[in-house]
Amino acid sequence: MIAREEVKIQTRGRGTYDLTSEIQRVVAGAGVASGLCHVFICHTSASLMLCENADPDVMRDLETFMSRVVPDGDPGFTHTAEGPDDMPAHVRSVLTQSDLNLPVEAQRCALGTWQGIYLWEHRHAPHARRVIVTVQGD
Amino acid sequence: MIAREEVKIQTRGRGTYDLTSEIQRVVAGAGVASGLCHVFICHTSASLMLCENADPDVMRDLETFMSRVVPDGDPGFTHTAEGPDDMPAHVRSVLTQSDLNLPVEAQRCALGTWQGIYLWEHRHAPHARRVIVTVQGD
Amino acid sequence: MIAREEVKIQTRGRGTYDLTSEIQRVVAGAGVASGLCHVFICHTSASLMLCENADPDVMRDLETFMSRVVPDGDPGFTHTAEGPDDMPAHVRSVLTQSDLNLPVEAQRCALGTWQGIYLWEHRHAPHARRVIVTVQGD
Repeated sequence: MIAREEVKIQTRGRGTYDLTSEIQRVVAGAGVASGLCHVFICHTSASLMLCENADPDVMRDLETFMSRVVPDGDPGFTHTAEGPDDMPAHVRSVLTQSDLNLPVEAQRCALGTWQGIYLWEHRHAPHARRVIVTVQGD
Repeated sequence: MIAREEVKIQTRGRGTYDLTSEIQRVVAGAGVASGLCHVFICHTSASLMLCENADPDVMRDLETFMSRVVPDGDPGFTHTAEGPDDMPAHVRSVLTQSDLNLPVEAQRCALGTWQGIYLWEHRHAPHARRVIVTVQGD
Repeated sequence: MIAREEVKIQTRGRGTYDLTSEIQRVVAGAGVASGLCHVFICHTSASLMLCENADPDVMRDLETFMSRVVPDGDPGFTHTAEGPDDMPAHVRSVLTQSDLNLPVEAQRCALGTWQGIYLWEHRHAPHARRVIVTVQGD
């Protein structure tokens, strides 16, 4: 059995957006008791990750880390048509995830206690992002 | 058809732990001839990866690399409640994998010759880690 | 329903190789209208990624980035049996993906407008690479 739903997320620019409750809502409505939930982002300048969901400092520190390793305006980059955050957004996406698979148990994603599902917007400007959620199983 | 088993791994602190034979054992018992095996770690300070399985130097060099790119005690981090390896463990997890999908053929994960499945413990203290293995197919 | 096909890619050495049309060809022939397509690379010195498919500068900039963060001939590495690009190839593979899952709709991978599927060869010498494509669904 396969159920699918597209989720739209309007970002307010660079930062992380907690999708956990939205994904759990889709899974709860899919009618799959046991299986897998696949989450896919249809973009190359925003990405997905599982990360610690309790302390907002974690998200700030992740941004601190990524901004240092993949700085905006890197003079080594030539793909700059959309601005200094264009190519860094692609690199950040490649270093994180475009798709996640999560176990489904009892009509919920069986996440660990501290695991949250996040969309990471890498562009500074707000963007409309599409995420395709597929739930499969029995 | 879907089969699921939870695997518990007691780590001895930071380092890599070869899960290949344990995952192959679960797949062999799942009764799925052809399909996919999903491996999921329920934590945000330990992660999964596929990597070269023949030379132990590879695991040491991976640690050398990661310790340099994501050093413990980074003064830029503010999430330090659990110590200097707390936030670096989250970053290392985000840069690697929380879930893997592997092809199943003839009741085995069809890995390449040099591919092993590893858990990477990023904390220095020993931890009890949970991994959920889901095998689906015909 | 599950369909599987192995795709062989002969690389000409380090660089990215667009697999999108080849993967779409496999999906089109699989007879699955709606489901998921799993792409798996059987190697630890070449990897997969989704990335921007319009401007070739993006691939060049990705290589610029990766060559800087994971330089060949790193004196900190001890696994050098196959040359200065041996261990860096494993690190690059760990930082990117060995497997991707993509939504299938109307017998095609439902990629975003700018998403392409790439194999990234990390070794300088040409290699014969194997990719296992599994399409499942209804």
